[in-house]
Amino acid sequence: MSPAALQAALCGPPGPAQRRALAKAITLLESTRADHRAAADELLNALLPHAGRSLRVGLSGVPGVGKSTFIEALGLFLVERGHRVAVLAVDPSSSLGGGSILGDKTRMERLSVHERAFIRPSPSSGTLGGVAEKTREALLACEAAGHDVVIVETVGVGQSETAVAGMTDCFVLLQLPNAGDDLQAIKKGVMELADLVVINKADLDEDAATRARAQITSALRYLGPHAHAGTEVLQLSALHPKGRAAGIDGFWAAVQRFVQRQREAGRFDERRTRQNESWMWERIEAGLRQRFRAHPAVAAALAATTDEVRAGRLAASVAARRLLDLFH
Amino acid sequence: MSPAALQAALCGPPGPAQRRALAKAITLLESTRADHRAAADELLNALLPHAGRSLRVGLSGVPGVGKSTFIEALGLFLVERGHRVAVLAVDPSSSLGGGSILGDKTRMERLSVHERAFIRPSPSSGTLGGVAEKTREALLACEAAGHDVVIVETVGVGQSETAVAGMTDCFVLLQLPNAGDDLQAIKKGVMELADLVVINKADLDEDAATRARAQITSALRYLGPHAHAGTEVLQLSALHPKGRAAGIDGFWAAVQRFVQRQREAGRFDERRTRQNESWMWERIEAGLRQRFRAHPAVAAALAATTDEVRAGRLAASVAARRLLDLFH
Repeated sequence: MSPAALQAALCGPPGPAQRRALAKAITLLESTRADHRAAADELLNALLPHAGRSLRVGLSGVPGVGKSTFIEALGLFLVERGHRVAVLAVDPSSSLGGGSILGDKTRMERLSVHERAFIRPSPSSGTLGGVAEKTREALLACEAAGHDVVIVETVGVGQSETAVAGMTDCFVLLQLPNAGDDLQAIKKGVMELADLVVINKADLDEDAATRARAQITSALRYLGPHAHAGTEVLQLSALHPKGRAAGIDGFWAAVQRFVQRQREAGRFDERRTRQNESWMWERIEAGLRQRFRAHPAVAAALAATTDEVRAGRLAASVAARRLLDLFH
Repeated sequence: MSPAALQAALCGPPGPAQRRALAKAITLLESTRADHRAAADELLNALLPHAGRSLRVGLSGVPGVGKSTFIEALGLFLVERGHRVAVLAVDPSSSLGGGSILGDKTRMERLSVHERAFIRPSPSSGTLGGVAEKTREALLACEAAGHDVVIVETVGVGQSETAVAGMTDCFVLLQLPNAGDDLQAIKKGVMELADLVVINKADLDEDAATRARAQITSALRYLGPHAHAGTEVLQLSALHPKGRAAGIDGFWAAVQRFVQRQREAGRFDERRTRQNESWMWERIEAGLRQRFRAHPAVAAALAATTDEVRAGRLAASVAARRLLDLFH
């Protein structure tokens, strides 16, 4: 199918044909074949005018926090209210073979078969930067196909959380109600990224969840009274809301409140503008590094030069200038 | 003076001639004139075999924390014990004119005139990366001249702290005894860099200093029990040690303990090796970005392309590929 035909089907009426076109479009965008790239770029440019009109929600949390159950409950809540939901993922570890998050659709049995939902596992090749780029492009395709809520999931490890926070309008951090361990999120710098913190499975131990909420609220205060003045910390149980534990409706209301505050402060559009520019520079820098390392003269000298620098026999700045001189 | 003559004088016996050679060498290394760069690189290569034998101590803290008084007291303590001390600084804001830290030598009246001390203000031009590079090169020159303790100071703002932690063996964070505000250090990610935290001016309010110590110790625990298991938090008064407030001797003993632990764990040399390699890549990436932006075809297209991307009319990845295609 040509990029133009793919775009037409993708932006056409909802239904099986559109869903197939969306899946095909993402496959084309994910392709690493050089001869696919021109068609992929043509498609992306054709889709762009139709993209941008969804609410992009990022979601992270360590394994065991209950992301799948949470996303299925949220997704069903939204599609029942007429929304069209897409679920994507960023999981650089998936390229190491197996274990891709969202790879197993049976994890979200009911949502995955719903006509207003579209679920796509993480691209399974390349560096984090590459995986993130493909997910960002898939996100644009989902928007062009009319999905008005896009959820981007990631695992609570490594830098993938920064990537997901950098492609969404509201980044949600799911935490377990055992507070101590979860404050690891501060160490990793993830807490700073959170627009909303959710203590999940709060029905299991309401007291622990309440303590966790107090501790996280206090930790957020450490992180700076200004940036995090508005960061809500919610106690939640997707399946069994009771007492202080809100349900999915409470969660969605909190997301709406955050988005409302962002829009009123002019920060919603500003954040997307900034994200667009950062993505461009991130890809430029990745491309420059790749080209540098692949340059024959650089490649021939790099290993030996690095050894000299590591051993302290060659000054780092001199080495950098020598290697840059080889790059022509 | 030729690079070889400069190197000979610099590595010669201590005295006024060596001091002049060191000052001249740093001026050459700091020069931004293209025709100086070859001589500077030749000098750097000649100095390198004589460098590396100092203890590199990084020091940061917000204005008002008492850095100058602390450094003067520490420097005098060390020179009196036979050490030869060099004090350098990283202050990217100094290029904005005026206010360079260490620019005013009267700040350290007694230390600056001591024959075993050498004080050099921050290089005053360029980006943080450029300023940091020049300070790293000056550090190597000071070592080649036989200074066995090099203190690198920075202001408690921006990314300069990361740069200084990345060029020293022990990075010390000075804090004021009013705990609440100082936990901003966590937000900025600086607390994570600290190998040693010093609550300065602890004699002013001993109770507040003790509370601050407890709070910072607890904050360090949040930051991860593993990485920071050994991070000491010291209450200190450089001028009036009393009660729980240690003096400069207590501080220097804590630095020695840290270095000892690093050496025993094999982390001392490993950290320098890693730093060398990071410096090289940082300079390569800065060079690539500079060359990219200066390329005529890229420069001609960059502003308009960036506008398209910011406005969401051109996909970031497509824009990056187009600009990279122009860069040949």
